Amino acid sequence: MATAGKVIKCKAAVAWEPNKPLVIEEIEVAPPQANEVRIKIVATGVCHSDLYHLLENMHEDGFPTVLGHEAAGIVESVGPGVTEFQPGDKVIPLFIAQCRECRFCRSPKTNQCEKAWAAMRSNAMSPLDSRFTCKGKKVLQFMGTSTFSEYTVVNTMAVAKIDPAAPLDKVCLLGCGICTGFGAAVNTAKVEPGSTCAVFGLGAVGLAAVMGCKSAGAKRIIAVDVNPDKFEKAKVFGATDFVNPKDHNKPISQVLAEMTNGGVDYSLECVGNVTVMRSALESCIQGWGVSVIVGWTNLDDFAARPIQLIAGRTWKGSLFGGFKGKDGVPAMVKAYLDKKVKLDEFITHNMTLDQINDAIELMKHAKWFNRSEQDCMLDLNCAASSPSCYVTLLHEKSGNQGNQGDEAVKNINGLINDTFQQFFGNVTIFVIRIKCQNLEWQQLSGHSSDCGGIRGD
Amino acid sequence: MATAGKVIKCKAAVAWEPNKPLVIEEIEVAPPQANEVRIKIVATGVCHSDLYHLLENMHEDGFPTVLGHEAAGIVESVGPGVTEFQPGDKVIPLFIAQCRECRFCRSPKTNQCEKAWAAMRSNAMSPLDSRFTCKGKKVLQFMGTSTFSEYTVVNTMAVAKIDPAAPLDKVCLLGCGICTGFGAAVNTAKVEPGSTCAVFGLGAVGLAAVMGCKSAGAKRIIAVDVNPDKFEKAKVFGATDFVNPKDHNKPISQVLAEMTNGGVDYSLECVGNVTVMRSALESCIQGWGVSVIVGWTNLDDFAARPIQLIAGRTWKGSLFGGFKGKDGVPAMVKAYLDKKVKLDEFITHNMTLDQINDAIELMKHAKWFNRSEQDCMLDLNCAASSPSCYVTLLHEKSGNQGNQGDEAVKNINGLINDTFQQFFGNVTIFVIRIKCQNLEWQQLSGHSSDCGGIRGD
Repeated sequence: MATAGKVIKCKAAVAWEPNKPLVIEEIEVAPPQANEVRIKIVATGVCHSDLYHLLENMHEDGFPTVLGHEAAGIVESVGPGVTEFQPGDKVIPLFIAQCRECRFCRSPKTNQCEKAWAAMRSNAMSPLDSRFTCKGKKVLQFMGTSTFSEYTVVNTMAVAKIDPAAPLDKVCLLGCGICTGFGAAVNTAKVEPGSTCAVFGLGAVGLAAVMGCKSAGAKRIIAVDVNPDKFEKAKVFGATDFVNPKDHNKPISQVLAEMTNGGVDYSLECVGNVTVMRSALESCIQGWGVSVIVGWTNLDDFAARPIQLIAGRTWKGSLFGGFKGKDGVPAMVKAYLDKKVKLDEFITHNMTLDQINDAIELMKHAKWFNRSEQDCMLDLNCAASSPSCYVTLLHEKSGNQGNQGDEAVKNINGLINDTFQQFFGNVTIFVIRIKCQNLEWQQLSGHSSDCGGIRGD
Repeated sequence: MATAGKVIKCKAAVAWEPNKPLVIEEIEVAPPQANEVRIKIVATGVCHSDLYHLLENMHEDGFPTVLGHEAAGIVESVGPGVTEFQPGDKVIPLFIAQCRECRFCRSPKTNQCEKAWAAMRSNAMSPLDSRFTCKGKKVLQFMGTSTFSEYTVVNTMAVAKIDPAAPLDKVCLLGCGICTGFGAAVNTAKVEPGSTCAVFGLGAVGLAAVMGCKSAGAKRIIAVDVNPDKFEKAKVFGATDFVNPKDHNKPISQVLAEMTNGGVDYSLECVGNVTVMRSALESCIQGWGVSVIVGWTNLDDFAARPIQLIAGRTWKGSLFGGFKGKDGVPAMVKAYLDKKVKLDEFITHNMTLDQINDAIELMKHAKWFNRSEQDCMLDLNCAASSPSCYVTLLHEKSGNQGNQGDEAVKNINGLINDTFQQFFGNVTIFVIRIKCQNLEWQQLSGHSSDCGGIRGD
């Protein structure tokens, strides 16, 4: 490769400081060092973790950085001594590494890795070191991946080599959301054949969870969402029953108990709302019901009465669907190529990298919904057939959010050309493609149930 | 048997109404009907569930009743068609039945039983029917057992036949508390050989949990209690490390994480305090840590941040230690006879049945501690070597509880002749023997981490 061993100058979306628009800059990407590869990012998604970092600024050493962690690309060059990868390999960067050596990697019980940067930097979202510079300044590498860049350098512990036949603009989604939902059912809940499942929230993660339940052989998959327009899509992924909590004037756990002779065997919370987490647990059958928290939030406690667990329910959580990345992601890519896993059906929008701030604005609004009152959120459901209703309602309901709201509405009006859906009160899917480098479309997919950047405490 | 087929008149402690002393009455116990046996109760314990029912009166059709559910006895006669039991069989009544036929009994995952009275009477603590009458009134059968009576009639689904060599005044403790703690470690947490465990609260249940961890092959068992006088006893049951939260000015989860390179593999909450439940979860290692709620409370929610589960911890609960009674209790009796399980070491006090109200008063005080402020509770620790300090402190600290407090102190003064210990803020062990029928000593053992009378919701 002509670029191997040299600094590459390329485009990236730099987040110079929190709560400010990203800036498309020319950055320098240094060559990979030992145990590193440099990857040409071909397709990337946007996940809520990116936004969380940008808006919340809750971590040390947060900026400047390049966001992005759900992507696929091609190895451009490898560092000294690296034999596991060759230039030209198709890869997916991993925000959870797999060193294969630490006590966590050796345990079949978990996908945590103790050797990753995250284990050493529990209060940060980036490794200390980075191969990025811009205008003479070091730029941090978000989640060890930074995929909002044409090139990025990643530790080999955090790279999954995938089938050369894989279409990168589809399998990039396996870098975060789809593995998260699918694996939560298959790996964390360990759904058994013939069982009955409930999936709360039919965002990207929830739909992937439905697909996981189906793949595991569940007999009955109850899709729960306050937006009935989602049910048709959920059916595509394998849902057999559909419940809109708005249709009932009793707790959803009671509705599900009556439908299932006492409760479901497995429930998956794919919203990131502690009230829904409670409902999901309470919807499980006593004795052996397992409820998995998949949706991400850490602003509030989740809670329940002790009797719920004492009666035999189990409460678990899932991070990246429990997949050990280097093993699990290539397997999921293969499953996609073998038509055992769907990916295309998650994609609804395309954008260019230059439009990334518009995407950020969209995500900001998803975030606002998370923080606004429940009634407002519940009114914001948008029919799949009327893409503009989202914007209109947003405008009407977000008046109290001032100028930002108006500006965002304008941006959204400029972008929206397809369904923009709002789920279960506070989960929004948006999967948007960015055309990048004139090579392939890049994916920007977002969901408020993100799964990235999570460490132990 | 001379009594077979006839009504037996015998002594029982009748709870005529909530919050009133039990009355030692002569009751009539009708002969067993189909699928029933009549049992001569030889030794019984008192568990906090008994008190909960008496004081809280939270259930329908609660009174009059005969309390008691932790006991051992001898089959006096059997109902028509019963072949599983013979007069003279030594048995332990079960507050959780095992029909062996329902979907729960057939599942290896749970000890719930769908055919038991409890499944039909979710708002009650007794089956509708009863073989007890007193002064012409029907008296209910608490938890399907009612062991504060010289005779009781129990459904064969809820009777475990045990080894004829078993000393009933010891193995009666397997009817509730000891199985609860031991099984929580072995059956629910499924402690693995070589693992590290923490047991929070060294009451009877907690000590049994320590014993369970040891039995399962745990390498390290950290006993946690605010009363260091408990540690010597915990060592007897297998504890290897001892932590008094009062010795540290940081969260106990942090103390344990530092001791164990990140947290324990298993933690067992044997207190019945939602704050301790949270600490126990947070003390587990991320990735695979399992925390089990064993202590009973249902007045408040337990809670934690979602990250705790998302990072790979599992939260479970345990009811009667997960033992299917007809299988598990005889096995535990055998383990005791084989000296693989300790029971004698739990017993500290003896009382007669006529003194049952004194025992109730003792339990009432344990209850009060649960409700009083933490500082007061923590000051009430009592050295094993100075049995009177408990009473003295109680008197001093309970002044705001008025006349009841003074009266109780008087009663306690009349009873206490050994250690009376107060654990981890709000757990009190009291194991007291009642001499009954001039045959054997009866056990009254109580702990605020009771486990009885719990159903799904």
